[in-house]
Amino acid sequence: MIGIFDSGVGGLTVVKNIIKRLPSYDIVYFGDTARLPYGNKSPEVIEQYTLQSAQFLRKQGAHIIIIACHSASAVALDFVMENIDVPLFDVLRPAVVQALEVTKKGKIGVLGTRATINAQVYEERIREKVVEMMRMPGDESHLKVPAFLRKKDRDKAASVSVYAQAAPLLVPLIEENWLNRTETKRIVKYYLRPLKEKQIDTLILACTHYPLVKKIIAPRAGKRVVLVDPGEAIAEVIATYLETHRDIDQRLEKNKQRHFFVSDITPHFQTIAQSWLGMPVQLEKAYVRE
Amino acid sequence: MIGIFDSGVGGLTVVKNIIKRLPSYDIVYFGDTARLPYGNKSPEVIEQYTLQSAQFLRKQGAHIIIIACHSASAVALDFVMENIDVPLFDVLRPAVVQALEVTKKGKIGVLGTRATINAQVYEERIREKVVEMMRMPGDESHLKVPAFLRKKDRDKAASVSVYAQAAPLLVPLIEENWLNRTETKRIVKYYLRPLKEKQIDTLILACTHYPLVKKIIAPRAGKRVVLVDPGEAIAEVIATYLETHRDIDQRLEKNKQRHFFVSDITPHFQTIAQSWLGMPVQLEKAYVRE
Repeated sequence: MIGIFDSGVGGLTVVKNIIKRLPSYDIVYFGDTARLPYGNKSPEVIEQYTLQSAQFLRKQGAHIIIIACHSASAVALDFVMENIDVPLFDVLRPAVVQALEVTKKGKIGVLGTRATINAQVYEERIREKVVEMMRMPGDESHLKVPAFLRKKDRDKAASVSVYAQAAPLLVPLIEENWLNRTETKRIVKYYLRPLKEKQIDTLILACTHYPLVKKIIAPRAGKRVVLVDPGEAIAEVIATYLETHRDIDQRLEKNKQRHFFVSDITPHFQTIAQSWLGMPVQLEKAYVRE
Repeated sequence: MIGIFDSGVGGLTVVKNIIKRLPSYDIVYFGDTARLPYGNKSPEVIEQYTLQSAQFLRKQGAHIIIIACHSASAVALDFVMENIDVPLFDVLRPAVVQALEVTKKGKIGVLGTRATINAQVYEERIREKVVEMMRMPGDESHLKVPAFLRKKDRDKAASVSVYAQAAPLLVPLIEENWLNRTETKRIVKYYLRPLKEKQIDTLILACTHYPLVKKIIAPRAGKRVVLVDPGEAIAEVIATYLETHRDIDQRLEKNKQRHFFVSDITPHFQTIAQSWLGMPVQLEKAYVRE
């Protein structure tokens, strides 16, 4: 099975993309609803929670695991990788690659939770990737060389700028299903203001929830700004990986079986889960002990 | 020591009241910041978390314990009481008594988290208390008979009405310290609208965070509406209890020692803790295992 982990039900936006791209693959999902949100918690706590969740998915038969939660991807990836024996994917790297592909001016904005933004991991990964691309253009066959790197003046690449903005109120607003309310629009505008001032041309939606308000983010970010949805990017990366890693692919069942585990169930979670996945979901309770 | 428990740092608004009323008493606080918020979680999960937290306070030497969290008070009080060997207080009962004392028309509004409101526990406790008061007026010497019960037509008492409103976005807004922003005002107004339509004359602020926005709630609730702050009410109840229970009082040290434990520390928690308590706070990390 493909295992997908998130701090809550927001990761279902990633599941939706995986199902679209790899419709027959069996999926096991775990949402840590008893301890959500991760976004305001410390790196140490997020590491522990993420490892426990990944171990749970492993026990359920996951042969690859996707960390759909950005806060967990940002701070816990290396820690979990050291302690788990299957390929582990995060939503951050595919988002970085796609952002570098689409940016024209090299001005990239990142909107995320406080934990994601404080980890400064997008800045770091984007810089690493730029350096990597400048050193060996064309070596990574699955990567296009970013448009702004093809320009004559390669030194410009060194000036790729990342502007990160924490948007801690967006998750609660989206979890209330206030997807099109005036208050949500005002608050989105407030968070985007500093990014607009920096004249970004690309915006990474660095939280599973944000694609649900893509329609109100897009016009407020500015019409020339390209939005990067990491959920779409990771689905492509997984598909490519499975094509080139047949041994792993063979271990994955393809019977359209999908299980959705959460550490806590409430009627509200059940409602939003169904609405966000866009298909009937039966949440099952799982105990993940510390 | 007096033990005070909350899901996060919001309970410091209760600590503030206890310090004001009982300045010399030693206090041990525990905020379950690694698993907050409780307000959107299920009763089963809240019961487990609350018991673990109460047991932690007991181990730290608490001889009475106050559950400052309304979500926990609303759903976990009986469960914890069965499993703990010291007097346990919740913030709900004092709020109910005070609301019945101040109401003139018997129209009481309750603003709380989703867990608190869904538990319908305020409705239940208010009705119980009204019945109790009607049966034995004057028997409970520490209780005044509510004004509206002194009227000739006692049958009116049966018509005491409780209007409950979940306000799930207020906690995140307050935790962002958006205490006086337009967005917070608009959202407060939105939540109060159904209560205003019912012409409430009393409003219970049924979440530790809400007293922090009392100034924006008061004018929007209407100038004739009396706000009940359970933090103030519980401080009075504890003081009275200790005066009448000397054996318990003797076990409590009075050296102004105060310890503030939390299950997760971030710079943000540290900042808001200090600001909400209104004095320097050194948060200490505690491990509370499941």
